[in-house]
Amino acid sequence: MKPNSLLTIERIEPPFWYAGMHNPELQIMFYGKNVAKYQVSVSNSIVITNVKRTENPNYIFVSIDTKNCPASDFVFTFKSNNSAAFTQNYSLKKHRENSAQRKSFDASDMMYLIMPDRFSNGRKDNDSNDLTHEKYNRDLPEGRHGGDIQGIINHLDYIQELGATTIWNTPLCEDNDTAYSYHTYAQSDVYKIDPRYGTNEDYVRLSSEIHKRKMKLVMDYVTNHWGLQHWMIKDLPTKDWINQFENYTQTNHRRTLVHDINASKIDTKICFDGWFVPTMPDLNQRNPLVLNYLTQNAIWWIEYADLDGFRVDTYNYADPEAITKWTKAITDEYPNFNIVGEISMRDQAQLSYWQKDSPIGKIQNFNSHLPSVMDFILSDALLTIFNEDGNWETGMTRIYNNFANDFLYPNVNNLLIFAENHDTHRLNHVYLNDIRKYKMAMTLLATVRGIPQLYYGSEVGMAGNKDDGDAAIRQDFPGGWEGDPINAFTKEGRTPGQNEYFDFTSKLFNWRKTKPVIHFGKMTHYIPENNTYVYFRHNDTESVMILINNNDEPKTIDTSRFQENLGKIQTGKEVLTDKTIDVTKEITLEPKSVLLLELK
Amino acid sequence: MKPNSLLTIERIEPPFWYAGMHNPELQIMFYGKNVAKYQVSVSNSIVITNVKRTENPNYIFVSIDTKNCPASDFVFTFKSNNSAAFTQNYSLKKHRENSAQRKSFDASDMMYLIMPDRFSNGRKDNDSNDLTHEKYNRDLPEGRHGGDIQGIINHLDYIQELGATTIWNTPLCEDNDTAYSYHTYAQSDVYKIDPRYGTNEDYVRLSSEIHKRKMKLVMDYVTNHWGLQHWMIKDLPTKDWINQFENYTQTNHRRTLVHDINASKIDTKICFDGWFVPTMPDLNQRNPLVLNYLTQNAIWWIEYADLDGFRVDTYNYADPEAITKWTKAITDEYPNFNIVGEISMRDQAQLSYWQKDSPIGKIQNFNSHLPSVMDFILSDALLTIFNEDGNWETGMTRIYNNFANDFLYPNVNNLLIFAENHDTHRLNHVYLNDIRKYKMAMTLLATVRGIPQLYYGSEVGMAGNKDDGDAAIRQDFPGGWEGDPINAFTKEGRTPGQNEYFDFTSKLFNWRKTKPVIHFGKMTHYIPENNTYVYFRHNDTESVMILINNNDEPKTIDTSRFQENLGKIQTGKEVLTDKTIDVTKEITLEPKSVLLLELK
Repeated sequence: MKPNSLLTIERIEPPFWYAGMHNPELQIMFYGKNVAKYQVSVSNSIVITNVKRTENPNYIFVSIDTKNCPASDFVFTFKSNNSAAFTQNYSLKKHRENSAQRKSFDASDMMYLIMPDRFSNGRKDNDSNDLTHEKYNRDLPEGRHGGDIQGIINHLDYIQELGATTIWNTPLCEDNDTAYSYHTYAQSDVYKIDPRYGTNEDYVRLSSEIHKRKMKLVMDYVTNHWGLQHWMIKDLPTKDWINQFENYTQTNHRRTLVHDINASKIDTKICFDGWFVPTMPDLNQRNPLVLNYLTQNAIWWIEYADLDGFRVDTYNYADPEAITKWTKAITDEYPNFNIVGEISMRDQAQLSYWQKDSPIGKIQNFNSHLPSVMDFILSDALLTIFNEDGNWETGMTRIYNNFANDFLYPNVNNLLIFAENHDTHRLNHVYLNDIRKYKMAMTLLATVRGIPQLYYGSEVGMAGNKDDGDAAIRQDFPGGWEGDPINAFTKEGRTPGQNEYFDFTSKLFNWRKTKPVIHFGKMTHYIPENNTYVYFRHNDTESVMILINNNDEPKTIDTSRFQENLGKIQTGKEVLTDKTIDVTKEITLEPKSVLLLELK
Repeated sequence: MKPNSLLTIERIEPPFWYAGMHNPELQIMFYGKNVAKYQVSVSNSIVITNVKRTENPNYIFVSIDTKNCPASDFVFTFKSNNSAAFTQNYSLKKHRENSAQRKSFDASDMMYLIMPDRFSNGRKDNDSNDLTHEKYNRDLPEGRHGGDIQGIINHLDYIQELGATTIWNTPLCEDNDTAYSYHTYAQSDVYKIDPRYGTNEDYVRLSSEIHKRKMKLVMDYVTNHWGLQHWMIKDLPTKDWINQFENYTQTNHRRTLVHDINASKIDTKICFDGWFVPTMPDLNQRNPLVLNYLTQNAIWWIEYADLDGFRVDTYNYADPEAITKWTKAITDEYPNFNIVGEISMRDQAQLSYWQKDSPIGKIQNFNSHLPSVMDFILSDALLTIFNEDGNWETGMTRIYNNFANDFLYPNVNNLLIFAENHDTHRLNHVYLNDIRKYKMAMTLLATVRGIPQLYYGSEVGMAGNKDDGDAAIRQDFPGGWEGDPINAFTKEGRTPGQNEYFDFTSKLFNWRKTKPVIHFGKMTHYIPENNTYVYFRHNDTESVMILINNNDEPKTIDTSRFQENLGKIQTGKEVLTDKTIDVTKEITLEPKSVLLLELK
């Protein structure tokens, strides 16, 4: 390099940090042409514990010890023999009071899942911009439709009215792909909100507005991959920053390989190192620089946006040991912070394997430290059973069988339970908008163990067939755009049919909010008979009885079988209708119906 | 009772016992009218440790301490104030040398499953008798066909030639039901071989003939139930000797209840205490007298008939804690004795739960002490896959997925593996006697982990559809009866088609006998591609490669993917044809075919 060339630091990440963290070591990445050729020092008696250079001279990773450092500004100085010295300011900020002990979401919550691009367009002036490739095009099913953070903020009252207490939105960080960027899982800058959604400050405002309503915000974090357009991917710090193969190699998706004692090495490598799609380079979390980068980025967002939890995408596609370290580092900082991983396994033992302190993981001395996993097995069942007759393993028995394996989980109350999400058929498609089936599914979701999650729009009857492509299950929420013919965000704007969906859902989940017996009570269920299913949730003071008839004809259920739960109880109040029901003898259920009884 | 009436002891069980057992306490049951009214004493300085009387005066249970008692004869004396004293002789016999350390079956064995009534009629003079109700009627599909112990003895050479090393026959103890007694699971006297099969001495002779051939004998033991005709059922020692309900109550078969943390008490009770069928009273193993009776009976047969193992019927229909004690008592006596339980669960975690030292059982502090369980999941797959296309979870992937969960088992080598048994469709029915599919199934069975079990007759192409009733899958072995048009026991008697089945099976399993790499070697398998499946068995000195093409067209497999197993190996010898195959580049497999290669 020429003497006296002036170096520009283009990126510093994290851009600032917080004093008083549990882990006092902070590794700051400076990016700029040939920055690695400089010697680094720092002011304020701060100790540099490590300086890491890589094969790419444009990066330097400087570790400092922040232990006992107060919140303060300080200065890094970069010197070189043959060029001018320059400096760079850095800040350790004060974190929120009790930040480390922040609470998180749990089974007392109901989580509402939003795809921001498809929910509501709060600001038209950010629909396109000069810095990101893909422009607004609402006519394109897979295009950018303009939904944004302001759109979510505008409808927080609606979400709260529905009975949700927690919002999980799919990712908001910049995704600069030229197409399909609306899903935002192929990120190009993980320290910056995509300008088409808003600014970093808008995201903080969303968090604050949510907290004003005593609700919670869960960020969708992507540890497995970035987008091809990520600025670091275009100038890799190290060749092994991402997992590379001679030729493009896709993951084989056989995530049983994590525990398969008969597995071949090559299959295992391809599973965890292969790419999800060609546009998403697979991060190599085994590289400590990568792992640390991801860890600090995650912690930075928790502090910066005051987050209440993470949902982690494609959790078990990352290197298992490495992703575990990421999770542990975060929960070491925030012991009460809940993180739910997308673990799409269809076998309870395999799913349990990934939950913190799992007895299944323990078989192989594996502990993921992941507090929560998504119960895809229940989802599969909920998207199937109400179209099924009941026999040895179908219909209501499919649900029963899922709960029969609850002993495999270290913490059943911390399973995220759902009928559908942005990757599945929509519930209302599967059941052809038969609201009776919707009610059965929702009542189950609202009353079994775990944290229920709803997918935006189903509460007003939105449907969608995944076989028609992802766009079909990610349609725009009606009323989210100026000029939409229907505004389903308001009672007046909804059709009578939509109001029937909404009112039921809202009543059910608002009731649930106040019911510790549902959040953390014990469950007792009875073997399904003739495609009916009866279970109880109970604790020392309360008891709730749920009866489901999954037949096309009425069914009468003899309640004497439930004596151990009913005891001397004589009546129950039906939650949705307030009717009083005699539970002493027989209860007749309408076809395809559910009774939700608070026992007296 | 009248003074001086002479009491007849009708039964003493066990009829004799053995000196020097691990458990020195022996509980002898005396049965006779009003025997409980007598005082009991015993000769030879033997100590009576306990005398138990029940509500039925016809029983008395006398426990003695046999510790340090030599093998000897001694005398019990029964005295009463108002009747004459009488005596009863009893013997402690010397047991076989090293009886306690007897070896058992393991993964080096191949087990041949026989239904004695349907295998071969060795003696016509015992086809019917005056003491048992059901008479010979070979025209009745569900009737007694006359097969017997002598029939098995007559064909031991055949069985050995086939490559079997162990025989499991369905039960032989007396079943005096008036119909369907041929299956012999509804026993009426568990100390006596059914006279239509032969005598107790015949059974000992069978054992001895088997041992002469260095083969092994496994008894089918029934702990869960007896037949309605059992003499004790007709005069119950205690009301709770069997599980009784107000009305006849059938088990609900939901054996997940053993670990279901959400289970209701009543469902659980009905599962384990409900009856299998109305003619099989469900034994109450929680009653220590019952448990001890069953334990001593089992041990008596091991000693008396010099057994090499048990297969236990409907193992997980009995009270879980109690059946565990039964198993532990037996394996405490015989630490190397293998016992395989019929655990027909379809989920690997649920199946593993029941194997000794299971990490899954341990979640609930449950240890069944049962060394081996039957892999019904593999059986389901073997009866399905060769008719399936291969996709994400069907075809060869169904098999792959079973082995992907092997980590859940405490001991995969001690799983009994099978395609079919006397309760399933016959393999050759499912595959319509397409011998290519038979060969694929058998090669899999012969080369994956576990103890392979074959069901009599399939090796000569016998087929049978369970949907046509059990008789269809339990037909008479051709040649087992004088005058049969075909004698499939001999090469000359078999049709060319039958010889093709037999020769293949015999060559395969005789080869397997000599292959420790198959018995206990490691397995490495590769994700199925296009409905082909490749796996290796290997140890320090040997390596075997198995390639299966489950398509209707030829498939060429690039072997470079298997580099970690092939290393510098260049060729393999095909076991069935002795052909040498180049494994360095590509191998083309015929449609629906398997290659079994010993690598050089």
